[in-house]
Amino acid sequence: MRSLAVNGRRYRWPARPTVVVCVDGCEPEYLNQAISAGSAPWMASLNGRATCLTADCVVPSFTNPNNLSIVTGTPPSVHGIAGNYFYDTEARAEVMMNDPKYLRAGTILAAFADAGAKVAVVTAKDKLRTMLGHRMKGICFSSEKADRVTRAENGIADAMALAEMPLPPVYSAELSEFVFAAGCALLERERPDLVYLSTTDYVQHKHAPGTPAANAFTAMLDRYLARLDALGAAIVLTADHGMNAKTDAFGRPNIVFLQDVLDRWHGPDATRVILPITDPYVVHHGALGSFATVHVGNGLDPAALCRRIAELPGIDSAMLRVEACRRFELPPDRIGDLVVVSERLTVIGSRVDRHDLSGLDAPLRSHGGTSEQQVPLIANRSAPDLPTRRWRNFDAFDLALNHLA
Amino acid sequence: MRSLAVNGRRYRWPARPTVVVCVDGCEPEYLNQAISAGSAPWMASLNGRATCLTADCVVPSFTNPNNLSIVTGTPPSVHGIAGNYFYDTEARAEVMMNDPKYLRAGTILAAFADAGAKVAVVTAKDKLRTMLGHRMKGICFSSEKADRVTRAENGIADAMALAEMPLPPVYSAELSEFVFAAGCALLERERPDLVYLSTTDYVQHKHAPGTPAANAFTAMLDRYLARLDALGAAIVLTADHGMNAKTDAFGRPNIVFLQDVLDRWHGPDATRVILPITDPYVVHHGALGSFATVHVGNGLDPAALCRRIAELPGIDSAMLRVEACRRFELPPDRIGDLVVVSERLTVIGSRVDRHDLSGLDAPLRSHGGTSEQQVPLIANRSAPDLPTRRWRNFDAFDLALNHLA
Repeated sequence: MRSLAVNGRRYRWPARPTVVVCVDGCEPEYLNQAISAGSAPWMASLNGRATCLTADCVVPSFTNPNNLSIVTGTPPSVHGIAGNYFYDTEARAEVMMNDPKYLRAGTILAAFADAGAKVAVVTAKDKLRTMLGHRMKGICFSSEKADRVTRAENGIADAMALAEMPLPPVYSAELSEFVFAAGCALLERERPDLVYLSTTDYVQHKHAPGTPAANAFTAMLDRYLARLDALGAAIVLTADHGMNAKTDAFGRPNIVFLQDVLDRWHGPDATRVILPITDPYVVHHGALGSFATVHVGNGLDPAALCRRIAELPGIDSAMLRVEACRRFELPPDRIGDLVVVSERLTVIGSRVDRHDLSGLDAPLRSHGGTSEQQVPLIANRSAPDLPTRRWRNFDAFDLALNHLA
Repeated sequence: MRSLAVNGRRYRWPARPTVVVCVDGCEPEYLNQAISAGSAPWMASLNGRATCLTADCVVPSFTNPNNLSIVTGTPPSVHGIAGNYFYDTEARAEVMMNDPKYLRAGTILAAFADAGAKVAVVTAKDKLRTMLGHRMKGICFSSEKADRVTRAENGIADAMALAEMPLPPVYSAELSEFVFAAGCALLERERPDLVYLSTTDYVQHKHAPGTPAANAFTAMLDRYLARLDALGAAIVLTADHGMNAKTDAFGRPNIVFLQDVLDRWHGPDATRVILPITDPYVVHHGALGSFATVHVGNGLDPAALCRRIAELPGIDSAMLRVEACRRFELPPDRIGDLVVVSERLTVIGSRVDRHDLSGLDAPLRSHGGTSEQQVPLIANRSAPDLPTRRWRNFDAFDLALNHLA
């Protein structure tokens, strides 16, 4: 049987249209609660005849590192994307890590396209599109800019006609629905061999599993997945990360403003706290997540600082770069001297005055830490000879192409 | 001002009727979601004028150790109750740890009663009553056996008349409502100085925060707390432990059957796995929690076994007794040679055939690990000079008597 090796792993040629779905912020409980509430009849029908694993995502449990892990089948130590945002020590500047120049591995999608497969990618926000579609021949566009596609840039000229719905606002559940609507239409019209669909976690940042808006989102997801299933696709669903409440019982955010703490300890220029959740769209989470890196100035002992940070209330763990790279498989040149992870109900901020929380119209829910590492890894077919191992979300293409019946 | 020293801590004499409430399994998110949904108007009214802390409970995050910690103001290393259930190495038998003979510290309640205070305790299940009321002069009864109280045994002859509701079934939300109904009537009729009310987590084991049944339970709680507040009581609310989903996305329980694993490794008599969640009422959780202890037979190296267990998928950490006692403040003679804690979405079982899961009519939710350690610590008054420290749920009486305005 024909197969392709990509980044040291081997993938079988798709025997049927194969769709990998990354549902942003899909804590397993979103699906469980929607199934329990009767909102996801198709998913409910999978129990017993299909595949349901709980997998570990990449930490930091953020969108960019995990989407790139899924499409390359590798951890960030290989593909290089360790956050949405980082301090480029060569350029001496804090920059977005969403330029393909930071990517150190090719994608499974591009490799299959090069080998002659018909490949399509639809993502909610445009920030991911250029990296997901890097050097990929085929269709690749975002809901966000679906009205501005060109055949040269996106491999398609009429993305708006596909979805049959108006262009949604960037902060909306519909931005994700557009991904599925377009994905279903693409499958019908183009019969691609390989499809990657990636949504946004706008709903998950606001609504807890089992609440009406969350169940409505999962119901929408369920309807489109049922349609893809009926079209004969092999489907694997996973998530870039989970999602947890980050508040006290009154709904007020639990925040450790780490740069303020470090400034009090060592003065304003001794350390630089980087929050890799930062991206151009922070209204719904205020750039507050459960993971930070710290660049430590000359004069300071990183190990001693690490021990002191680990003792702060709300902090789960603090570790030196070498330990963080070993434990989380991160690229050492793309993180700081320290990595700090907060507890499940707590986020890490920089300075109080650097966070605009005025856009938070619901109690904060967020991600980034090890508490959001567990995600669903589900398929619509059985996997008869599944090896017993620690499954990762970046095994999604391996599961889809190598293990499904 | 008059004060009392109990177990090395000093408590001021109650200036007004003071009620400490332990809401079993009250993950902070239950309150936050109910407030957001408009189901808890009284709690919503506290934000800004009252006190809301997030505290750490005792690990193992089970009912008995935490209730005894709250009423003694001490960790299990002092009061001796390290679980609901343990292997008594002297008696060479697995026994319930709910007999007052296992208690190594007096309660704050008993000390105040001895000093002349009028004290009342109402708890949902009778399993806790004898320990909570140990050597305490005053009123002490359970909802479960409210129809069988005597003045000699319970300090009250007409518990059923207090609550003005029928005796509820042991597996019901009403068993907890009865606690509050009786507590409110007691406050009105007896004007006690100190009241301790402790519920059962039947609802929390079945229903996630923000779902209709969970919000209805919190709404009930909110109504009774408002009534206690209107009666002039100082109220502190905390929880014995949090609660998390322990399932995959399809709602199937994630279980590590640890005794089966150890039997495969070392034969059937080499180790003994104890699940300290075990109690006479296991229908709603199947005796499955996120904490286990292991007694290791002669011939086996505990440290090597520990390292091997820690590598099992679903296990968060495994540690030797000395480390567990240091980290969780446990009594060394009441736990095994090893302590094992599972990940947030996973529980630890013994042998497959020892767990009856037929009573689980909803996807498993449970507790026991560090992932359920964070609980609310709330008061209906402000606390103007609150020290910055790691708050514990067993600081509830300290907060109520020493810090509230």
